[in-house]
Amino acid sequence: MIEQLSEAERADALDGLPEWDFEEARDAITRTIVFTDFAEAFGFMTQVALLAERADHHPEWKNVYNRVEILLTTHDAGGLSSRDVELAGAIDDILGG
Amino acid sequence: MIEQLSEAERADALDGLPEWDFEEARDAITRTIVFTDFAEAFGFMTQVALLAERADHHPEWKNVYNRVEILLTTHDAGGLSSRDVELAGAIDDILGG
Repeated sequence: MIEQLSEAERADALDGLPEWDFEEARDAITRTIVFTDFAEAFGFMTQVALLAERADHHPEWKNVYNRVEILLTTHDAGGLSSRDVELAGAIDDILGG
Repeated sequence: MIEQLSEAERADALDGLPEWDFEEARDAITRTIVFTDFAEAFGFMTQVALLAERADHHPEWKNVYNRVEILLTTHDAGGLSSRDVELAGAIDDILGG
């Protein structure tokens, strides 16, 4: 059983993920990335898909051509958990950020 | 320059795509598919991505775990065009429908 982050943990996590926005209504973090074209966007999505599958923790995401919107939350925890923070960090690493 | 479908062409196209819904507000067609798991869903998305890239016509789509929502419209035409009908047919072929 995975637990939601506490208020203090959430604040720390967001400090460490400056590229991500907090979406209060979903207790989620979001990041939108704009690439050069679809091939680059989908290539990135494929890298994230493999990471997510390995971690058994998957994003909610939307793609329109060169744009990818990612939302991370943990359904089993009813909100943000350490799994989201880890996946967000791994996504930032792919993006070199 | 690609043109929007006429009313008659649109009606014919929708008759030929019974798995797709017409979304009037966007002049688009949509289909939602639920797979067994994320790996199956993303495998499907990869097949569609390659088709879309070859056709230089790309979907708007959202994925949450085993669920994929696809919306097709042609931005250059300001609505549904033959490109959407062709891509929808190719997606149906992947799905065996």
